[in-house]
Amino acid sequence: VALKRIVALVGGVGGAKLAYGLAQLIPTQDLTVIVNVGDDFELYGLKICPDLDTILYTLSQRVDTTNGWGVAGDTTAMLETLRGYGEDIWFRLGDQDLATHLLRTHMLHNGHTLTQVVTHLAQRMGITARVLPVTDAAVPTMIDTIEHGELPFQTYFVRHRWQPQVRGVRFVGAAQAQVSAEVRAAVAAADAILIAPSNPWLSVAPMLAVGDLRAQLLAREVPRVAVTPIIGGRAVKGPAAKLMGELGFAPTAQTVLDYYGTLVNGFVYDAQDQVSADDVRLYRTNTLMQSGEDKVKLAQNILDWIGRW
Amino acid sequence: VALKRIVALVGGVGGAKLAYGLAQLIPTQDLTVIVNVGDDFELYGLKICPDLDTILYTLSQRVDTTNGWGVAGDTTAMLETLRGYGEDIWFRLGDQDLATHLLRTHMLHNGHTLTQVVTHLAQRMGITARVLPVTDAAVPTMIDTIEHGELPFQTYFVRHRWQPQVRGVRFVGAAQAQVSAEVRAAVAAADAILIAPSNPWLSVAPMLAVGDLRAQLLAREVPRVAVTPIIGGRAVKGPAAKLMGELGFAPTAQTVLDYYGTLVNGFVYDAQDQVSADDVRLYRTNTLMQSGEDKVKLAQNILDWIGRW
Repeated sequence: VALKRIVALVGGVGGAKLAYGLAQLIPTQDLTVIVNVGDDFELYGLKICPDLDTILYTLSQRVDTTNGWGVAGDTTAMLETLRGYGEDIWFRLGDQDLATHLLRTHMLHNGHTLTQVVTHLAQRMGITARVLPVTDAAVPTMIDTIEHGELPFQTYFVRHRWQPQVRGVRFVGAAQAQVSAEVRAAVAAADAILIAPSNPWLSVAPMLAVGDLRAQLLAREVPRVAVTPIIGGRAVKGPAAKLMGELGFAPTAQTVLDYYGTLVNGFVYDAQDQVSADDVRLYRTNTLMQSGEDKVKLAQNILDWIGRW
Repeated sequence: VALKRIVALVGGVGGAKLAYGLAQLIPTQDLTVIVNVGDDFELYGLKICPDLDTILYTLSQRVDTTNGWGVAGDTTAMLETLRGYGEDIWFRLGDQDLATHLLRTHMLHNGHTLTQVVTHLAQRMGITARVLPVTDAAVPTMIDTIEHGELPFQTYFVRHRWQPQVRGVRFVGAAQAQVSAEVRAAVAAADAILIAPSNPWLSVAPMLAVGDLRAQLLAREVPRVAVTPIIGGRAVKGPAAKLMGELGFAPTAQTVLDYYGTLVNGFVYDAQDQVSADDVRLYRTNTLMQSGEDKVKLAQNILDWIGRW
């Protein structure tokens, strides 16, 4: 198939790595990166969008590559001062990072949509790919835990370091929300749709739950390819494998493939794993992305493979 | 007279110096520092209170003693990042300073009064004197300039570096506003009232314009003493002397004394100046405060002099 316009659905760190690889190969607006906003929350009145920021910082090469998020070399003078004022600090706000939160919050208060804010920030960061929040609506992910009951996502993820046992996940307002017009247009025009190796339940599902996005994707008779975030029974980063166990699934690439079901017609899994499927094209390759080269190579391999369909 | 409870009305840097001296002599809640809020404004959604912050940073000894405002050794990583995003940066927001703005804005949004916020911040900074905004209402000072028409105070003061020619000053909402209950009680209980060497037109007048504060002060038959901000025909810092000329006054201590009129029954002026008055007690001394010792010495001299009334 001829591949020109690529859409990638991404969550945080894992998704950002593939987006980075793709952006080196498609350094134009032909690449649209649609980003989860279920993690977004407010802190001290600032609107924080962790996944969007990870994508922006990664694509603009300012990301802290050790953590995979935040700005490289960022300081925390503001945060340490707040701590000195007796505040309970549990979420890291770097000083440079704060500029992003402050400008975003200010623009939102002045009536701009999140899509407009992200477009502005991406342009100012020198990013040429299109980065789009999946929706301009608030669709907060809530995590139901055995120990603490239902928690806002960042409280579960950062404050409790994803240690509580999860028994359910809810995407508040997602069914009533709509994807933005920009997302709708990008999906409609895509020559291929990639689902990045992000957490299927916590990063991808919150996007698929927005309005009729799932139906929009299913309606596109183009390659719809997911990349596994599970390698050798483990998550590369974060709670994916732990969560799968808590929800009653085996932490395997096969579980990820089964979870996506008919949404995908192609699946990329790691060389050390095995999966089987009747109606899905399978591609086995090295999927671990550590270096910048790894990211570009995986993106290239996937695009080449889809090109041979 | 017996002096126990002292009230000082202060603006920014000059007022903070005298407040610092007083706080070393009266290290308890017997000292109440009433602070101008006419300079307050919003920037990127943050509520900024320049005079209150200068007082808090000075009393807690975190102030940048070179500038007289801001936090010593503060960094500007956030601000430089905003600049990198293409923002027009004209007001300095230090990274540590930001914590003050962010916490204050957040507490105000959550329904706390400015008085409650300042009390909280002062306590967290280890300040034992009472620091009170003159009012919880918004009473923005507007500066009418020949070059640019009417400007918000900080636009005149910082953005234009107080270079425009002033033809008038207006305290929006001040007449309709009321001083806080805490300010009212402090004034009613004061054994002496000091007006710090702050700009009479731009720092003190905005306080005197709030509700019936002037009448409350006049009703108190206690020492009401102003300290000149003009020494040898010059302002120690800032636009006082320039402004006096623009408003048609000679830039002298005598002008300051005449401006306060019957509001004061005592006046402190510098050893290098001369003033005369019929019904006002006069005290001539060294009023320039450079070192910490200078500040304590001037405060001590003034208290001793009033004690001999």
